[in-house]
Amino acid sequence: MNERRLKELIRDKKYVTLKRELEDMNPVDVAELLESLDVHTALLIFRMLPKDLAVDVFAHFSVEQQRELIGLVTDKELKHIIDELFFDDMIDILEEVPANIVKKILIHAKEDERNLINQFLKYPPESAGSIMTIEYVDLKKAMTVREALAHIKETGLDKETVYTCYVTDKNRKLEGIVSLRKLVISDEDLLIEDIMDRDVIYVHTHDDQETVAGIFKRYGFLALPVVDKEGRLTGIITVDDIMDVIDQEATEDFQKMAAMSPTEEKYLDASIFSLAKHRVVWLLVLMISATFTGGIIRKFEGLLQSVVVLTAFIPMLMDTGGNSGSQSSTLIIRGIALGEIELKDARKVVLKELGISIVVGAVLAVVNFFRIYLFDNVGVLISLTVSLTLFITVVISKVIGGILPMIAKKINIDPAIMAGPLITTIVDALSLIVYFSIASWLLNI
Amino acid sequence: MNERRLKELIRDKKYVTLKRELEDMNPVDVAELLESLDVHTALLIFRMLPKDLAVDVFAHFSVEQQRELIGLVTDKELKHIIDELFFDDMIDILEEVPANIVKKILIHAKEDERNLINQFLKYPPESAGSIMTIEYVDLKKAMTVREALAHIKETGLDKETVYTCYVTDKNRKLEGIVSLRKLVISDEDLLIEDIMDRDVIYVHTHDDQETVAGIFKRYGFLALPVVDKEGRLTGIITVDDIMDVIDQEATEDFQKMAAMSPTEEKYLDASIFSLAKHRVVWLLVLMISATFTGGIIRKFEGLLQSVVVLTAFIPMLMDTGGNSGSQSSTLIIRGIALGEIELKDARKVVLKELGISIVVGAVLAVVNFFRIYLFDNVGVLISLTVSLTLFITVVISKVIGGILPMIAKKINIDPAIMAGPLITTIVDALSLIVYFSIASWLLNI
Repeated sequence: MNERRLKELIRDKKYVTLKRELEDMNPVDVAELLESLDVHTALLIFRMLPKDLAVDVFAHFSVEQQRELIGLVTDKELKHIIDELFFDDMIDILEEVPANIVKKILIHAKEDERNLINQFLKYPPESAGSIMTIEYVDLKKAMTVREALAHIKETGLDKETVYTCYVTDKNRKLEGIVSLRKLVISDEDLLIEDIMDRDVIYVHTHDDQETVAGIFKRYGFLALPVVDKEGRLTGIITVDDIMDVIDQEATEDFQKMAAMSPTEEKYLDASIFSLAKHRVVWLLVLMISATFTGGIIRKFEGLLQSVVVLTAFIPMLMDTGGNSGSQSSTLIIRGIALGEIELKDARKVVLKELGISIVVGAVLAVVNFFRIYLFDNVGVLISLTVSLTLFITVVISKVIGGILPMIAKKINIDPAIMAGPLITTIVDALSLIVYFSIASWLLNI
Repeated sequence: MNERRLKELIRDKKYVTLKRELEDMNPVDVAELLESLDVHTALLIFRMLPKDLAVDVFAHFSVEQQRELIGLVTDKELKHIIDELFFDDMIDILEEVPANIVKKILIHAKEDERNLINQFLKYPPESAGSIMTIEYVDLKKAMTVREALAHIKETGLDKETVYTCYVTDKNRKLEGIVSLRKLVISDEDLLIEDIMDRDVIYVHTHDDQETVAGIFKRYGFLALPVVDKEGRLTGIITVDDIMDVIDQEATEDFQKMAAMSPTEEKYLDASIFSLAKHRVVWLLVLMISATFTGGIIRKFEGLLQSVVVLTAFIPMLMDTGGNSGSQSSTLIIRGIALGEIELKDARKVVLKELGISIVVGAVLAVVNFFRIYLFDNVGVLISLTVSLTLFITVVISKVIGGILPMIAKKINIDPAIMAGPLITTIVDALSLIVYFSIASWLLNI
């Protein structure tokens, strides 16, 4: 079923056919279709959907679309949507919509639910608590497999996942987990306590979502239990939500590494001022840091005035130094983020970068020497000055690019800060000092 | 159970206790423990593990550890491991080990299995075919739910997943899917064809793994069927393998955006020469491109000689331009990679970057004007020249940084190439032309 045909059905008001088509579609695709329509047509079709599908579709709308629709539907419709949403989706919506709508929703909730909602809204953003849900299958040790399967049959439709089931005691302490696969292949008369896995890997409500994502990647889990300080099961996190986290964390690193303060706002949705705000601070800091570099040049003004051609190579030296350093810092930052490089590897990293930089620096310096000696007509001494500086710059940048993210990690700063832009600023100053020192020495100025 | 206690058990040769502890652990953790030991102790303990666990542990070893162990185990042990591995894990190993070991393994395989292995080894790297596995649950339309569950009970242990089951006709054409959740909650007398979902979303064997990851993220699937050109089911991809793909694709982008040719080699495992090779090509290209910038400076040597202080601001202007452009290109490249920005948004992107750059540029220019006028003692005209250049540079860099990735996408080049390093080189040249033009005009030189 393609989008154009569906839009024709809408235009021709063939709603019966349309409804039938929509019912067979994945809610994600229905949500995308409705978002591409004007809001009144969208509402009309939304109301036409079977109740269950409507709720699923609503959960997949963008925040903007959800806000718009909440403003248009009746209180009764809203209550139905909210009641039927998975708990984590509801919390996500409550976090985004204006306060008056939150109030409207909380009025409809029962008291215990209201308390639970308030507790969930208090988990720090990007914590395990903020991405977990409460719809899990809860089993008891003394149940037989048959009873457990009957329990799942009865309640399974309303659970976020039934593929991992959680065994808790009467105080909600987590005692074990058992997979639906295990239940289905086990003898029906066995007890849950005989087949459950007691060595459960879990996270705490306040653990960072990046840690959670790391555990999912390491073990390939489909779901992970979240416990509070007392070891009581408070929720579960499912793998589909973790894929968003993995993307989000990588995006954050991309932003930081390009000298921006990270934001979850989507580019096309964000306002010009919001985007500008996230960019200007680091640019200012780096611009003012570049004053150092300017200061170095001013100190050597005399030298530059007598051999003005030296100026012509400053951009090439600065750029190559910056690029060399960025390469190293990018690999190390990414390696740290993926857990492939740890603090104890610092020595290895430095030695490796030293080795690489000697190889890379030598290649660049030789090519550069012949290029400027043969084509730029500047004589052998200046060619030598530039190439020697290039070699030393590459070595310095790569070693700094390799070690700064490790130092950041060590002192608990985000390594992603130590990326291209900052490395470039540092390396610029160093490479100019090297350049002018070698020049004074070789050219005898 | 912590690593230190386990190592004590190993040191004290308390193998009975050790074995019991290991049996309760997750295979991932056992693999990590064994990798930290010398290879002979590792082999000793590996042979102690129950057969099923041993195979699981083997699948989680690094390629190097797998290679070493394959060299040490007997042919019989190797045959057992290979037989019991999931098909996709076996293919991964075959792709990495030396040819003589591949031969050794293929000798032990039955003919139809050998054919299948050869077929899988031929799928292009990073294609859906290269990451799929063949251990899925195959159901028939005419089965009842009871029969399907009995089938799963019998064969489920050897399947990569039992949570999504695939319904095929006698020619292996994919007719529908049904989840284990649906099976468990449905009446046992219903037919599979009554409860299966016919609108199946699938991929083809030659689709790119990035496309596959996009589908998993969009729909939150746990598994996805892979069909050949004739629509026959040839394998499935499970979500745990997709998390690696998401990381891999982001890492590739990080590498490209820092001017490196991408590689899947882990940093700590890669040799110095291999790492150097991936870095030197782009550095050379960018170094030679920087010649332009040098050429521009040489053309304006006269101007620089008469007002040598202008040189002092070149690094700051170049860095700020480069950073501004990197910010924009990073956001756009990432947005394209995540599917949030499409070609049709090009106009929006340019207008947005124009708006942002005017705001950011104005802030930077004003701060900069007062900073150099008040602290650098260079007079109002030079302060004005520098600040005006800064403003124009920021605007140019952001617009170029925003539009180049879109153009790359349009002409089917990877947008990640149009990142910081390349943008910087382009912007350097432009900003110097602007700088010298404004200087000649304002300072009347």
